[in-house]
Amino acid sequence: MEFVDRLLAASEAARSLVCVGLDVDPVLMPMEVLRPAKGGPAAAQDERVAGQGQDRRLAGGGWFSYDAERAVVEFNRAIVDATADLVCAYKPNIAFYEALGLPGLRALEATVSHIRDAAPDCVLIVDCKRGDIGNVATAYATAMFDVWGFDAVTVNPWGGMETVEPWLGRPDRGVFVWCRGSNPGSSDLQDLVVAGGEPVYMRLARDLSALPAQDNLGLVVGATAPEQLADVREVCPDMPILIPGVGAQGGDLEASVRSGVDANGRLAIINSGRGIIYASSGDDFAEAARIAAGELRDGINVTLDDMGLGWG
Amino acid sequence: MEFVDRLLAASEAARSLVCVGLDVDPVLMPMEVLRPAKGGPAAAQDERVAGQGQDRRLAGGGWFSYDAERAVVEFNRAIVDATADLVCAYKPNIAFYEALGLPGLRALEATVSHIRDAAPDCVLIVDCKRGDIGNVATAYATAMFDVWGFDAVTVNPWGGMETVEPWLGRPDRGVFVWCRGSNPGSSDLQDLVVAGGEPVYMRLARDLSALPAQDNLGLVVGATAPEQLADVREVCPDMPILIPGVGAQGGDLEASVRSGVDANGRLAIINSGRGIIYASSGDDFAEAARIAAGELRDGINVTLDDMGLGWG
Repeated sequence: MEFVDRLLAASEAARSLVCVGLDVDPVLMPMEVLRPAKGGPAAAQDERVAGQGQDRRLAGGGWFSYDAERAVVEFNRAIVDATADLVCAYKPNIAFYEALGLPGLRALEATVSHIRDAAPDCVLIVDCKRGDIGNVATAYATAMFDVWGFDAVTVNPWGGMETVEPWLGRPDRGVFVWCRGSNPGSSDLQDLVVAGGEPVYMRLARDLSALPAQDNLGLVVGATAPEQLADVREVCPDMPILIPGVGAQGGDLEASVRSGVDANGRLAIINSGRGIIYASSGDDFAEAARIAAGELRDGINVTLDDMGLGWG
Repeated sequence: MEFVDRLLAASEAARSLVCVGLDVDPVLMPMEVLRPAKGGPAAAQDERVAGQGQDRRLAGGGWFSYDAERAVVEFNRAIVDATADLVCAYKPNIAFYEALGLPGLRALEATVSHIRDAAPDCVLIVDCKRGDIGNVATAYATAMFDVWGFDAVTVNPWGGMETVEPWLGRPDRGVFVWCRGSNPGSSDLQDLVVAGGEPVYMRLARDLSALPAQDNLGLVVGATAPEQLADVREVCPDMPILIPGVGAQGGDLEASVRSGVDANGRLAIINSGRGIIYASSGDDFAEAARIAAGELRDGINVTLDDMGLGWG
């Protein structure tokens, strides 16, 4: 199935444009998740013990050791189970898994496998922002599409069209090019005004819309700049747009929906990471994630209804 | 030891500005390396056998299966052993390891370990071109510096200074920001002329040179554009510059050396990947790599001597 059709079907199934960013960080996880699967709560240790996996300093003093791989798998499993019927996509940022070493990557493998089982309709996007030239880009595409089996990736276009093209030509896999970030620093290079009077990110959007093979091409444009999102959507009316920054980063949700969706009110993927997965730092984190995901879905759908583009 | 001092010492020890790009691809490796460590040559199979690790189609027909992890480790070990006294740095591009899955990453671990044993003076740069915002960049820095233990990284600055800053402030680890690529496509965004009349990559070089904490900051500028290299060197006179593109990509070596070194004829790292590691596709690949690395070192040193900046 083509990626765009798969995305449309996933959105329709959950009546949702919400994507959950699985940006795991054991430091932010509830202690409940870090505890050994069997047996009671582990005792605090007076000193940090090297070689016992990851550890965390306790508020009351002392250290607590845990198995990061197991913790990440359990945490993600609970989040996915609690949100699968409310969202159209999951987006792990691979940086957080790489930061845990090979155990983190094994935890990502297990998470991918669980999403396939528990949320088979959902699109699985890896936020990896890879960007390199020619044969290196081809190697990254092999890694993300063939080895990992992700449905879609984010790509960094700094090296030019040559760094984007090796990802294309696979209609079943989505490629979201990082066009305009949600962070303030994105303005440093992306907003520079070039000859002709437009910013670099708009030149990029135009160049991408002119590519011959773009069946599977999408864009990343932050929610923190809704007017820029509207400009990009005008130039690329039919591309899926992945929109980060509505949660912790404070982007305006209604403006993002109005600016980001296509003419049918679809093909926008609105991502929230910390705002959903760390909605509670207590044992009720999964229920809190479900509530936060549902509120985000409903908030988006109110705007879609208001635009006359609801789910019918 | 500060990264810049470590780099200067590594260059001095080998009287060399050469970096070997360990861009492994089993498809390009000699059959000798792919064979099982013990026993005779494996027999060709009539059909591709799934689940037996990587495989390669034979020129004479049939398929040949091999263990990619073992092959990569053996290949890299032979290359490192053959070149350790001729070079100042090794630079694996992590994309090629990721393309082989977790076995590829385990092979990279073993390669790092071997380089530390066999070439303890050499600087170990991971070409990962990571680029993401705030807490994601911090996670990548943890992965590359703390988990992997690399001495230096390449970073993609598309997301602005905010994507570079989390890497800085560690004087013992080098950060090479991808400023101007060696590929033709680099011109798409990097060469766009911005208000003030300079290209984006020069604006970037200026912004980077103005950062407060830049003890460990360097740049990547391709050898295929020596005049651009000279412009960047003028703006950043004291930064290390990593220079790809002299080998297979056809950059002009003498012009790159003249344009790339600092006032003392140092702090340039001239990378060659395929030109060294695949200098021969036969069983003599390691000897051929040694010859190619030596020729590159000597070619650079002729220019340094001619500039009156030789090793004395």
